[in-house]
Amino acid sequence: MEQVNRQVWLKSRPNGIPQADDFAIRVAPLPTAAEGEFVVRNSYLSVDPAMRGWIADTSTYWPRIEVGDTMRAFSVGEVISSRHPDYAVGDQVMGIFGWQDYAAVRPEQVMRKVLERDLSLSLSLGVLGLNGLTAYFGLLDVCQPKPGETVVVSTAAGAVGSAVGQIARIKGCRVVGIAGGEDKVRQCVEEFGYDVAIDYKREADIDAALRKACPDGIDVYYDNTSGAALDAVLRQINVHARIAICGTASFASWEPWNQGPRPERHLLVKRATMRGFLTTDFAARYEEAIADLAGWIRDGKLKYREDMREGIESAPGLIQTLYEGGNAGKLLIRLREDSELAERSTS
Amino acid sequence: MEQVNRQVWLKSRPNGIPQADDFAIRVAPLPTAAEGEFVVRNSYLSVDPAMRGWIADTSTYWPRIEVGDTMRAFSVGEVISSRHPDYAVGDQVMGIFGWQDYAAVRPEQVMRKVLERDLSLSLSLGVLGLNGLTAYFGLLDVCQPKPGETVVVSTAAGAVGSAVGQIARIKGCRVVGIAGGEDKVRQCVEEFGYDVAIDYKREADIDAALRKACPDGIDVYYDNTSGAALDAVLRQINVHARIAICGTASFASWEPWNQGPRPERHLLVKRATMRGFLTTDFAARYEEAIADLAGWIRDGKLKYREDMREGIESAPGLIQTLYEGGNAGKLLIRLREDSELAERSTS
Repeated sequence: MEQVNRQVWLKSRPNGIPQADDFAIRVAPLPTAAEGEFVVRNSYLSVDPAMRGWIADTSTYWPRIEVGDTMRAFSVGEVISSRHPDYAVGDQVMGIFGWQDYAAVRPEQVMRKVLERDLSLSLSLGVLGLNGLTAYFGLLDVCQPKPGETVVVSTAAGAVGSAVGQIARIKGCRVVGIAGGEDKVRQCVEEFGYDVAIDYKREADIDAALRKACPDGIDVYYDNTSGAALDAVLRQINVHARIAICGTASFASWEPWNQGPRPERHLLVKRATMRGFLTTDFAARYEEAIADLAGWIRDGKLKYREDMREGIESAPGLIQTLYEGGNAGKLLIRLREDSELAERSTS
Repeated sequence: MEQVNRQVWLKSRPNGIPQADDFAIRVAPLPTAAEGEFVVRNSYLSVDPAMRGWIADTSTYWPRIEVGDTMRAFSVGEVISSRHPDYAVGDQVMGIFGWQDYAAVRPEQVMRKVLERDLSLSLSLGVLGLNGLTAYFGLLDVCQPKPGETVVVSTAAGAVGSAVGQIARIKGCRVVGIAGGEDKVRQCVEEFGYDVAIDYKREADIDAALRKACPDGIDVYYDNTSGAALDAVLRQINVHARIAICGTASFASWEPWNQGPRPERHLLVKRATMRGFLTTDFAARYEEAIADLAGWIRDGKLKYREDMREGIESAPGLIQTLYEGGNAGKLLIRLREDSELAERSTS
């Protein structure tokens, strides 16, 4: 066990995608739990597209990260000491504990206790964590797909997109993915079971590619990107189409604000809905969703990919990696193996 | 009773707002009812913003109106002969019977039978017709306003907008209208009870005007215009805001497609919804809504304005009048007085 706490902190505020140089690593003393807190030792750290917004934007869900702060991040680990009655040593917890080895944590930082001890703890940062929940609620609640409908997903091979596509298939939909590059397109069809996948980097005419892939029009669009894909989808939506706005990854910045063709006329003529959502609005139903997702994983119906990087030293450059599409699956940082966990080694 | 049927027909297809010259009036023989039809004598004809789209667009709810066709229009009148068991002579009906004196009608052209014999038949083309229903369902169903919330409406003094504003007040909301010109703004506040009305023609900075009028942000926006008003509202929406897209009147044409600031980032960050709707999707609930609307009219809580033009000869220029804002209230054409109706004169 390290006797120090390594922390990745924000050294300078980037304009656009955060680069490795915008961060540095410092060594801090091990944190201790105040009354009502407990200390988590992180096993895996997450790298998420939302991090760009946490750093850059003032208009976001959480307070902006300031220069000097330890980088906010989802992570998963084990309680090693506790001064809170609901959290015992050995509990596995997932939440916002930061890009660091150890964190003194208050209950409101915890997203959930991890109960699926037959599955790797790392899944709680991906398909059994915010990615899977985001796919689940954004598709099933916001879009309400019906069997036989056509569902289109952007960043279709990504951590959220691949789960959206597979859940839509489980629900009996025709599923069309939009992804960038030959490898991802192949992965969509061969690994995640999409009916068709469109390579937006290769297709000169995304409208024509969508028309061919969606001969009956588009009923549901799960949008992770905004931009040209959204614009093209809107031109081909069916009456009563539903569009979930999950992310705007195709734009590195919103200063100045991005312009585009106006969607409201499409929404009007097709009596369609475009809705932004935040997974945490569904917090009361996480366990219901995790039970479904874990069941589909155990049944082999829901596949996932992890792109596991080793050691906290790898963290600073990984937001850039994510935005460049340089990852193959959910991008994670491993601080130690599942097998090192006290609880697993004794069970 | 005229012995001929005067019809306003489309003489040439306009690019943009239809002008008087795009129409002509012809004289046709009185129609007769085939089996399953009945003949309606129109009392009032409607002039609606949607007419522009019916003529210009291929991507609309109904087939495009072709050159040579009698202009499609909502109207209200009385059954004068019938070969359909559900429609008797003397029944008052509202529906799509065209800009003409008489129409041979099939039941699917009827929107509803008019049952409120204590109120003028003309109301069935406005506040007790599609305008009132559009306000009712667009506000109450699409936007679901809660007491104390801030509701913004564009074309706030118009036939739809004025009903939206008043219904929002009835439901306990703070209501802010956006309208063009001093007269309309005064009307909004003095006649329709808006808390504040903004004159978009006078305000150089619509964002600042909205900020001042909506100190607690915007929870609901009922959009009849698209354009700059929508863009400004999006910059000030609250979390879980709801935007109903009812019309795009600020744009005369969508060829080429109109551009603007992208809304999806606002929808995402504020977990907000933007939804287009068509009143006819709520057809199963018309009578429920009409009962509410008629009740509010009788109680003096729901006011309306009619801008009544006389005679079918006035019809050709009135779409232009509507788009220029040259009307003061619901724009209607009177072919004969309510008092001429057989049913009323004998009751």
